[in-house]
Amino acid sequence: MNKYADKIAITTGDPNGIGAEITIKALNLLNIPPKDIVIISNSKILNTYGSLNNNYELIEVDYTEKVIPGEISAAAGDFSFNLLKKACDIKPKFIVTAPTSKEAMNLAEHHYSGQTEVLEKFLAHDGQKAEMLFVSKDFRILLLTRHCALKDVSVSFTKGIIIEKIERLRSYFQNKLLIKKPSFAICALNPHAGENGLIGNEEENIMIPAIEALRNRGINITNPLPADTLFIDGAQRYLKDEKMPYDCYIACYHDQGLIPIKSIAANKTVNMTIGLDIIRTSPSHGTAFDIAGKNLANPESMIEAIKYCLY
Amino acid sequence: MNKYADKIAITTGDPNGIGAEITIKALNLLNIPPKDIVIISNSKILNTYGSLNNNYELIEVDYTEKVIPGEISAAAGDFSFNLLKKACDIKPKFIVTAPTSKEAMNLAEHHYSGQTEVLEKFLAHDGQKAEMLFVSKDFRILLLTRHCALKDVSVSFTKGIIIEKIERLRSYFQNKLLIKKPSFAICALNPHAGENGLIGNEEENIMIPAIEALRNRGINITNPLPADTLFIDGAQRYLKDEKMPYDCYIACYHDQGLIPIKSIAANKTVNMTIGLDIIRTSPSHGTAFDIAGKNLANPESMIEAIKYCLY
Repeated sequence: MNKYADKIAITTGDPNGIGAEITIKALNLLNIPPKDIVIISNSKILNTYGSLNNNYELIEVDYTEKVIPGEISAAAGDFSFNLLKKACDIKPKFIVTAPTSKEAMNLAEHHYSGQTEVLEKFLAHDGQKAEMLFVSKDFRILLLTRHCALKDVSVSFTKGIIIEKIERLRSYFQNKLLIKKPSFAICALNPHAGENGLIGNEEENIMIPAIEALRNRGINITNPLPADTLFIDGAQRYLKDEKMPYDCYIACYHDQGLIPIKSIAANKTVNMTIGLDIIRTSPSHGTAFDIAGKNLANPESMIEAIKYCLY
Repeated sequence: MNKYADKIAITTGDPNGIGAEITIKALNLLNIPPKDIVIISNSKILNTYGSLNNNYELIEVDYTEKVIPGEISAAAGDFSFNLLKKACDIKPKFIVTAPTSKEAMNLAEHHYSGQTEVLEKFLAHDGQKAEMLFVSKDFRILLLTRHCALKDVSVSFTKGIIIEKIERLRSYFQNKLLIKKPSFAICALNPHAGENGLIGNEEENIMIPAIEALRNRGINITNPLPADTLFIDGAQRYLKDEKMPYDCYIACYHDQGLIPIKSIAANKTVNMTIGLDIIRTSPSHGTAFDIAGKNLANPESMIEAIKYCLY
């Protein structure tokens, strides 16, 4: 058996960002038994940003450049990419990824929208696709479109895509969370759910037909609901530590899903990749080059990302 | 002097919705001196939904139809419209409007997107325009576009419109709130503020030129900021009753502004109309025809709308 099959692999992201710092801080605060963790990084980088209380296994990845906090470089981008590749190669139970820089990866000729797409490239088989889920406690949000200009959201929005993504969401609930019939609430694309076509018609033309098809497949999902009121109940319950009204919300686009969860859960929001054999979690923030190397980074979201894999 | 010049005029909205019920409940709970209030409604309608503890002045508006909770009718729409007209005629200090039905007003051939536009018709002079602000405590959000299909947001978004609306916002702060140099934070239209044009270019082409022009006029406003992280700090401060980081947020479209404030402030959110001589406030919900006449309506948002006018 693969010796990493029960472990959490942690990649420390861009060497010039806050990734190694929050990894060290999070691991020191969580105090996880070393047998559960493998770090994929480089000792020079780790030593630059702090020292670990426990003796975790480290898989070394080459990095010959100097560590220069705040610098965006091709070497750093290439290294970040190699960490992800190595994490996929060893087939751990979970992958936790500290932030990388898309710009640095681009400089190194690795052209991806983000880490999600890199993981998909290395892990997907038999038509699998990665989906982006944001989670804090049992407040969960799936995005139907990701890094898409607002004006293109409506165009990149088809019945087929909605069905596919929500089917993958159901599989995740059934296979990984063991929730047989999860309840999903879906945001309308337009204000007031389009008000019967007065303010946009994607609800009637695209979303409702997709929802009907999903219901025919046994999926428990609402009609498209006005997104400004949909989160009120859940947000208040989240704040009181009560059970959420739905197992998952589905947002049509980036800000529609991320504004409510980040406003409410702040740094406790975790970015997850589902749909592949290995679940990946990640803090919901970026490399924070402006504060890198200053010991100012808040490890809260990294802690949540690692904790997610412990339970 | 006009006898209503210091009063709050309250219109009870659609006779078949929850408007009269929440007006009665709110006034009974707030126990405001009768001299400060004038109700614009019809005694038959008020008597259908409850009774008032205090003896407020009532301006009667004709309504010959039967009150049928939940029914959408032209007569009800016409009545709602007449209440607004009367409120504008008497020139009070504030107008508080209970919810109306756009559909009922349309049936009565009053074709407006909402009450904001009706008030603008009756009150605007010398090029004034109404702006929609959502408020809870000092958490405030201006919408740059209102009831607009998502796919049309980008098209209805020009440098000139942004400048105009934010100028009106500044006037409101200076003239009504007596805040000489308010601080404004503006949401980017696209995720990650467009990431230097990688995900949309309205930030560079439209928003930044508008912001520069506004700064040249002495307005204190941020660059377009990623909306998913912009509200985190303010939301957490709001929940702890601390001062907000900005006097006002500016959202590019309906859900971008209403999701954060409603998720955080829930029923304490008030819908305001600024830019006209009279400030209008309103609960941030609709007629709730489904629960009308059942004594189930929650007056919290109406209470906040009235309270706003008391201080």
